[in-house]
Amino acid sequence: MVMREHIADPARIHHEWDADLEPALSINSGDTVHFDLKVAGEGQVWPGATYEQSKFDFDTIYNLLGPVHVNGAEPGDTLEIEILDLQAGDWAWAAFLPGMGLLPEDFPDGYVRTFDLTQGDTTTFAPGIEIPISPFLGVMGNHPGEPARQLPFPPHRAGGNMDNRHLTRGATLWLPVFVDGAMFSCGDPHAAQGDGEVCVTAVECPMKASLRFRVHKQGIAAPSFRVPAPAVSTKDVGGYHATMGIDADLMAGAKKATRAMIEWLVAEHGLTRADAYVLCSAVGDLRIIEIVDSGVWTVAMTMPLSIFQTA
Amino acid sequence: MVMREHIADPARIHHEWDADLEPALSINSGDTVHFDLKVAGEGQVWPGATYEQSKFDFDTIYNLLGPVHVNGAEPGDTLEIEILDLQAGDWAWAAFLPGMGLLPEDFPDGYVRTFDLTQGDTTTFAPGIEIPISPFLGVMGNHPGEPARQLPFPPHRAGGNMDNRHLTRGATLWLPVFVDGAMFSCGDPHAAQGDGEVCVTAVECPMKASLRFRVHKQGIAAPSFRVPAPAVSTKDVGGYHATMGIDADLMAGAKKATRAMIEWLVAEHGLTRADAYVLCSAVGDLRIIEIVDSGVWTVAMTMPLSIFQTA
Repeated sequence: MVMREHIADPARIHHEWDADLEPALSINSGDTVHFDLKVAGEGQVWPGATYEQSKFDFDTIYNLLGPVHVNGAEPGDTLEIEILDLQAGDWAWAAFLPGMGLLPEDFPDGYVRTFDLTQGDTTTFAPGIEIPISPFLGVMGNHPGEPARQLPFPPHRAGGNMDNRHLTRGATLWLPVFVDGAMFSCGDPHAAQGDGEVCVTAVECPMKASLRFRVHKQGIAAPSFRVPAPAVSTKDVGGYHATMGIDADLMAGAKKATRAMIEWLVAEHGLTRADAYVLCSAVGDLRIIEIVDSGVWTVAMTMPLSIFQTA
Repeated sequence: MVMREHIADPARIHHEWDADLEPALSINSGDTVHFDLKVAGEGQVWPGATYEQSKFDFDTIYNLLGPVHVNGAEPGDTLEIEILDLQAGDWAWAAFLPGMGLLPEDFPDGYVRTFDLTQGDTTTFAPGIEIPISPFLGVMGNHPGEPARQLPFPPHRAGGNMDNRHLTRGATLWLPVFVDGAMFSCGDPHAAQGDGEVCVTAVECPMKASLRFRVHKQGIAAPSFRVPAPAVSTKDVGGYHATMGIDADLMAGAKKATRAMIEWLVAEHGLTRADAYVLCSAVGDLRIIEIVDSGVWTVAMTMPLSIFQTA
């Protein structure tokens, strides 16, 4: 079988998982597809836009491409997605929005800021703070089968809006198939994000993506991924500062850890509270330190020290 | 002020946080204390012991040393603990126990296994699987003030049994002070553990520890720590395989991800289910991938590929 390359039609934008959508293209197992993906919120936010100027419409905020029909994929199979290449565009935005994110009670107002991605491997977050650009797609998913239609969030049993910052160039993702042809779509490109995406957005940008698909005729216990050595993030090699939330509830522990990190960023690095929250979302990682100790769990947020240009 | 070194009396073992305990020693801010710590379960489990032979008594399982009274530390202050050195002993054990851990419903029976730590930087988990020895103390804490007495688990507002695998040699921990003199104790040494400690034990071993204490006359938003570059774990540099639990409940998501990792370890690496569960606890890391997406969160367990001697 010849492995072919395809270009996804950039006009086939859709804003939801919809079983009635015709395939944008049909491919064979082993084929590669190139996607030219719009930023989430294209036209709703732009370089230099403020929260007051922006207008978020969640019915159309994600500009997904696909669906890709993979010949031979059947319910019960596994679709492998090899992430061959990801190229971020030249600008990005981040925001928090009323009622959303991990700490809506602390941040009742909205906030938008934008970034210049033309500087190289990092973007300037604030004077003396450079964050690494580490592109990935927030949404990669097969159609979940049920429900036949749903918005692109939240994530579902066939993947979708997993916002998994580990899925950078070189990583491989495996997702279960629930409908004939898998009907894969992707979008929501991110230039940077930490584990947790706490403020509700990543650093959102346009992106070119090249993905190779393979069908495996067996099931998988859960959506899984693999990060090979060259794709492992190096942001932590310079060490990290961390805050802990010790609580009987994992969500409450995550909130405590994030609040303490925001306080630390304000006190030690002079950020506004708003920017500290966004920075936690952009590069801070939420980790479950322990989940087994007599009903009280420990969650940590780690902040890589490599982003600070001065010690 | 002269900075002094002290040796904690190895006979001053205690098994709980107890406000009536006399200090084992009084030190000044800046002083260092050397601890010779017994393994958790000393005398209850031994090299080569099986679950049937072992006898766990949770009232005495932890052999804490201290309490260390730090002169000048008062409620509202912060105690800094600099981890100068940690040397693991020559053997270790791990177990899961009925009704405990992240997956008691999957593992209703108990299981104990032991490890030889005399081989160098790793210990053999199974043929072809070497896990890195990365010593830390599962318990480091100030007395919490209230309650006046409690067992060493779970962790509390002044630290305690945080089971934080990041606190290796070179790391620094900051804990709030709730009683005069801080009344610091430590114990529960671990040779290896992943984020989560999912099976309920780490790789438990005896350990020599050297800690330097400093009092800061200001409070802290939450227990915090810092890992400098040389102390960052290198276990992930060879890449990782990961499973995801996508669920509206973080605990349920963590269970899904762990179950799928156990299945993968059994299928791909030929482990028994029991050893796969223990391996998840010993080196697998639970990460909160996203915690903000329309009520459905994604938790991942990552397994470092560097532990597998064959690809």
